[in-house]
Amino acid sequence: MLSQFQAVGQALFTQGLVSSQGGNLSVKLGEHLLITHRGSALGSIQEGDLVETGITKNSRATPLASTELEVHRCIYQNTSALAVVHAHPPYAVALSFTEKEIIPCDVEGRALLAKVPVLSTNMAEKLGELAEDIARLLKEHRVVLVRGHGSFAASQLLEEAYYYTTVLEQSCRLLYLLKALGVAPR
Amino acid sequence: MLSQFQAVGQALFTQGLVSSQGGNLSVKLGEHLLITHRGSALGSIQEGDLVETGITKNSRATPLASTELEVHRCIYQNTSALAVVHAHPPYAVALSFTEKEIIPCDVEGRALLAKVPVLSTNMAEKLGELAEDIARLLKEHRVVLVRGHGSFAASQLLEEAYYYTTVLEQSCRLLYLLKALGVAPR
Amino acid sequence: MLSQFQAVGQALFTQGLVSSQGGNLSVKLGEHLLITHRGSALGSIQEGDLVETGITKNSRATPLASTELEVHRCIYQNTSALAVVHAHPPYAVALSFTEKEIIPCDVEGRALLAKVPVLSTNMAEKLGELAEDIARLLKEHRVVLVRGHGSFAASQLLEEAYYYTTVLEQSCRLLYLLKALGVAPR
Amino acid sequence: MLSQFQAVGQALFTQGLVSSQGGNLSVKLGEHLLITHRGSALGSIQEGDLVETGITKNSRATPLASTELEVHRCIYQNTSALAVVHAHPPYAVALSFTEKEIIPCDVEGRALLAKVPVLSTNMAEKLGELAEDIARLLKEHRVVLVRGHGSFAASQLLEEAYYYTTVLEQSCRLLYLLKALGVAPR
Repeated sequence: MLSQFQAVGQALFTQGLVSSQGGNLSVKLGEHLLITHRGSALGSIQEGDLVETGITKNSRATPLASTELEVHRCIYQNTSALAVVHAHPPYAVALSFTEKEIIPCDVEGRALLAKVPVLSTNMAEKLGELAEDIARLLKEHRVVLVRGHGSFAASQLLEEAYYYTTVLEQSCRLLYLLKALGVAPR
Repeated sequence: MLSQFQAVGQALFTQGLVSSQGGNLSVKLGEHLLITHRGSALGSIQEGDLVETGITKNSRATPLASTELEVHRCIYQNTSALAVVHAHPPYAVALSFTEKEIIPCDVEGRALLAKVPVLSTNMAEKLGELAEDIARLLKEHRVVLVRGHGSFAASQLLEEAYYYTTVLEQSCRLLYLLKALGVAPR
Repeated sequence: MLSQFQAVGQALFTQGLVSSQGGNLSVKLGEHLLITHRGSALGSIQEGDLVETGITKNSRATPLASTELEVHRCIYQNTSALAVVHAHPPYAVALSFTEKEIIPCDVEGRALLAKVPVLSTNMAEKLGELAEDIARLLKEHRVVLVRGHGSFAASQLLEEAYYYTTVLEQSCRLLYLLKALGVAPR
Repeated sequence: MLSQFQAVGQALFTQGLVSSQGGNLSVKLGEHLLITHRGSALGSIQEGDLVETGITKNSRATPLASTELEVHRCIYQNTSALAVVHAHPPYAVALSFTEKEIIPCDVEGRALLAKVPVLSTNMAEKLGELAEDIARLLKEHRVVLVRGHGSFAASQLLEEAYYYTTVLEQSCRLLYLLKALGVAPR
């Protein structure tokens, strides 16, 4: 399990999809979840960087968990997801300010993601307050984008949620490059 | 042979020319071909990620092959290629929406590729339906670009087809950068 | 201590935040500081690349220190910082020509940096002449940007000052991408 | 010597300053020079990838040398350089179509390079025909840019010529980013 966190974390960091201490990952284990530590560096996850706590109940370790624990919990409570990847893909975040939903125009993005909703938010709001909206949208979408913040991808496997994240960024980079030329993709 | 797939796959992934599970590679071996597995991660190809099947006949392993097997087969049936690289180079894909053919304006791209045709396609079409067009164009060109999808490069060696792919992206990035400034390169 | 310099230096170089011999790092050790050698390659710091000298007094090794020693000294004399990272993050440097202060519009940047002042300078000025301005601004800000030059981040740990630098660049890249589309982020 | 070629070649490739088989490197050794092999992959130089030949006289190995041998020879015949790096830095090549000379607006670029002349060329011309112009300009400049082709940096050490190349690209990326916003840097 640790090695899956390490592989996905390192890939996200190396590809520039999280800053050195940004982003977080979790998997569901029955009534529990395993989530990255508050402020842990995804590029070099160590054993001590994983925190186990309940999906609904707190454990002694709960305060050590990522500040976005509540979003992860809410997703597991409301969807069939077994793994969640939260990242800050740069082109996706840029388009989160200009689009209400992302509709990929490349074959891979369209086949895999079809449509990615963008949750707008005012900056004063805490992310925890968006947890229910994120979870609700992840019932019908593989990835949700939160304006000015980043992506939440949910799936059965950590690696799959990572894959959705990279395809989102690939599609958004393409949409951005076309938008910068003033070209509508269809 | 495995090590050639690994070297080329890792280079494509590291340079951002495929997403974590995008793209596919094959080589021709007499009446057979060796192709990457459906959904395999090019960045870390293992022995089990290579599937052997016939150029014209199916084998038991055929259903495991990349979903783009038909394109690879069609290329081997209609050209003298011994290796095919399919990738999603970002600037090349962006220009696939704006150009009917790519004419490199850098010395390396012009010497190596001269001209790269762009196959337009509507999204409803399956890629398999384009297989014959791709193969036909690869008789006269080293690389073909499919709109909104990616590049197909054919050559005698996997490494050479990879090289054509990187030069295509280098030329397209240059053309894009100039286009974004409103500059015509000649 | 060497390993911290190496980890941070390599990360800065790998992510394109310094050129092959650009940027410099230091930590405060009581009345002394440990700083990278003049012209050392941050991507591959060796033991001999670290120079120890006084915060106020020169040592025999002083002439070997980074040309920006005076800025580092001035920061340690005027703030409670224990570590300083100077880098050349490309999007941040680009915005240093267009903005008087950087106000991140992403959640991570806003939470961590709030506001990053930009020191304008004419090219004739030596960086040493700006040392006091930089130090003064670092009393109230985690990072300062110097026009046409780069960022100075100060913190208690080298890794933390590095983290601020990466978040600055992440925020500036986002601001740049929106600016290039003609979009105001709020 | 081999290890210097390897370190510089790998750095150029990893940073995207050459395509997989583009660019070439040489050093002067008395009346001889050691140059990379025709079509060698700078990212993974092996011992067999280095070719020794005369500065003025051919050896049996001459036909194996990089196709740009004549430019390297001409530089060694006309300047005091002991090492030459030829690369294809993307932003520098883009600006080679829009500028007659590159004047860096960042402190590092200005201090190190001051001004980089751009040799314009029509595509029909062979690069060999420009060899004398390149060599002449390298008497007074550390780097010369050839339109649509790339950079030639000359110095006493391979690593230094590589450093000039990375600083050129850093300066050109900055100039490009500002130009794309319609901002003049001064």
